[in-house]
Amino acid sequence: MYKSLSICDFTPEKEIETRIDALKNKMAREGISFAVILQNVDLFYFTGTIQKGVLIIPADQRALFFVEKSLYRAGMESPLEIIPIKKDKDVGDILRAKGIIKGKCGMELDVIPVILFERWKSILGYDNMIDVSTLIKEVRLIKSEFEIVQILKSGEIISHVFQKARSIIKEGMREIDIDAILIGEMRKMNHQGMLRMRGFNQEMMNGYVTHGYSATISSGADVPISGLGLTPAIGQGASINVVQRGVPVIVDFGGGYNGYITDETRIYVAGEMKDVFRKGYDTAREIIEEIMGFVREGTNTTELYERAYQRAKEAGIEEYFMGHGEGQVGFLGHGLGLEINELPVFTPRHKMVLQEGMVFAIEPKFIIPNEGAVGIEVDFIVRKDGLQRVTDSSLDIGYV
Amino acid sequence: MYKSLSICDFTPEKEIETRIDALKNKMAREGISFAVILQNVDLFYFTGTIQKGVLIIPADQRALFFVEKSLYRAGMESPLEIIPIKKDKDVGDILRAKGIIKGKCGMELDVIPVILFERWKSILGYDNMIDVSTLIKEVRLIKSEFEIVQILKSGEIISHVFQKARSIIKEGMREIDIDAILIGEMRKMNHQGMLRMRGFNQEMMNGYVTHGYSATISSGADVPISGLGLTPAIGQGASINVVQRGVPVIVDFGGGYNGYITDETRIYVAGEMKDVFRKGYDTAREIIEEIMGFVREGTNTTELYERAYQRAKEAGIEEYFMGHGEGQVGFLGHGLGLEINELPVFTPRHKMVLQEGMVFAIEPKFIIPNEGAVGIEVDFIVRKDGLQRVTDSSLDIGYV
Repeated sequence: MYKSLSICDFTPEKEIETRIDALKNKMAREGISFAVILQNVDLFYFTGTIQKGVLIIPADQRALFFVEKSLYRAGMESPLEIIPIKKDKDVGDILRAKGIIKGKCGMELDVIPVILFERWKSILGYDNMIDVSTLIKEVRLIKSEFEIVQILKSGEIISHVFQKARSIIKEGMREIDIDAILIGEMRKMNHQGMLRMRGFNQEMMNGYVTHGYSATISSGADVPISGLGLTPAIGQGASINVVQRGVPVIVDFGGGYNGYITDETRIYVAGEMKDVFRKGYDTAREIIEEIMGFVREGTNTTELYERAYQRAKEAGIEEYFMGHGEGQVGFLGHGLGLEINELPVFTPRHKMVLQEGMVFAIEPKFIIPNEGAVGIEVDFIVRKDGLQRVTDSSLDIGYV
Repeated sequence: MYKSLSICDFTPEKEIETRIDALKNKMAREGISFAVILQNVDLFYFTGTIQKGVLIIPADQRALFFVEKSLYRAGMESPLEIIPIKKDKDVGDILRAKGIIKGKCGMELDVIPVILFERWKSILGYDNMIDVSTLIKEVRLIKSEFEIVQILKSGEIISHVFQKARSIIKEGMREIDIDAILIGEMRKMNHQGMLRMRGFNQEMMNGYVTHGYSATISSGADVPISGLGLTPAIGQGASINVVQRGVPVIVDFGGGYNGYITDETRIYVAGEMKDVFRKGYDTAREIIEEIMGFVREGTNTTELYERAYQRAKEAGIEEYFMGHGEGQVGFLGHGLGLEINELPVFTPRHKMVLQEGMVFAIEPKFIIPNEGAVGIEVDFIVRKDGLQRVTDSSLDIGYV
């Protein structure tokens, strides 16, 4: 019954082995003796399931997957052997007996709260800890073919949303009413129901419908467009702002399938688009097309940002590029995977050479104060011979 | 324009003052000299806005609200004076100049990741830190009349969902298709779009539609019913399981208005409910009605759990009470507010005396292996003379 109700593939044993081995190799190189994996997403990546438990990865021994609850689900979903425990503190004795607690201990110090960290120091009777999150992010950076299949299915959900958006957006609608239809539509298409962004205070919704004034207001978040939302308690997403003729409606949605996130943006316009947005749209489109032309294995991530900025400058709209005023952000795109803020990041500062299996979103957007915003966001997979798009959804303006 | 697009009330200055003063008093009693507030929800509670910034609350001076971004939004939403900063490290110099860095420093150590904690120790040039989260939770425990107004509006969203559920649930529908309609419906009713659960790895969705088998499978989460979800990567919420005659559909939804969360559950049955669920439903209903009768200011939280467990035992169904087997959880209900896991908690272990202004959900649920689940969840506000319900939605079974 359990497996007959599963529409998503469980993570194959071979995948899990390859992932754990990749981390072990990096740990050995960095002189980390063992890692304690506690975060939901990392647990899913390395075990195939998310339960109350902990995965211990010694650099030189088999990984040990301790589960408190649910043993039943863990057994169904994970190809790893499950070691049942009553309480997390049972783990300390077992690791001591196996001689695993020695050398440097890697933990996800970018996300583990202080109190939990202190608890694990006490469980292990040990305090030689070091951050292992950078190594985990590096392993997760290169997607396997299994992962790419999930990402393509995630992309299908977005393509469907964009089609639906075209048929339902009308002048006079509230952003929130458009959002209501589209998030329901995603769910019907088997969207997993939520998306993840790594880090403290990082919160996100499944979709963002913004338009005109509400697309121009910056927020505390490190994104070019966040929307006003319905309350200062959330401060992002659709608002009650009403669609006006000629002003682009920004539809920025996140697909979610079997954990994997896709993230694309299209614009919709009732009637003819106002001239003030034309240069922004054309430039965004040129940036995407240029990237599809020159990027391949070996391209430097900074080159994408620099070329895009150059295009914006040539069009004379660099002051609106990726935000305006205090809202301007310093990146053109971001990696995708189980979290929406994976590597690589496309900024002028962080250099990274593109390799086959990297997956990312490129989002040239222009925010014009008091008028509105315009832009496109497209997801790509790096292949040996160039970029593959994640969706086949048209980049054209959706006239409605 | 900004304020005309706001449907929710901004937090009044008087509220913010009262809240900060309440924390200062508790800090003074515990010998904490100053607090560094960084978490989204706590920032919203004490400033009225969520921006990239930090609130410093000295026990004996005015609070200082430092904002990096968005200054514009912070100025619109918060009644506090905004101190603009370029980088978080500017805060250290200002606090040193004002002589604030001394004695014990309170931080939200239950949620602050290790790396951020180390960063703040370096910014302040100080390492005499102590957890302040318990004091914050105690302040947030008692809701003001302003907060109760928001909670009642949040409850209206749920009432609407339950009405809609009755009209759309049909035999043969997938859980996910019911969910798709109801989450869209909530959004149209101005649901804020996401809900919050405090703590590491705590993730939740806005709604849970579960039914039969998929309502009986336990999960890693500390909840009686989580649902199967669509993927092990999420492992909660609606699945593709199809509604069958006579088996309750559990509709457990969270309202969200101006940050405030409500959380109620009803059941819907196509045709006549199977006998195996009858005792569970009747007992859940009796538990709720008994609670509405005897609970008032001064009642002990443990009494609610104990009386409920007694009822379950008298009905001979205690082994299904709040879960079954490894899935059984040790609580009957939980506090509500800006997060869904606030104080008080209703367990046999944690004693707390109910006071006016506390708000909570009581959720007697019974999980019958291989058959399904049944139960009710109802939100209450403690008033001087007894309990007030948050919604006026009927507790009856919705026959569809």
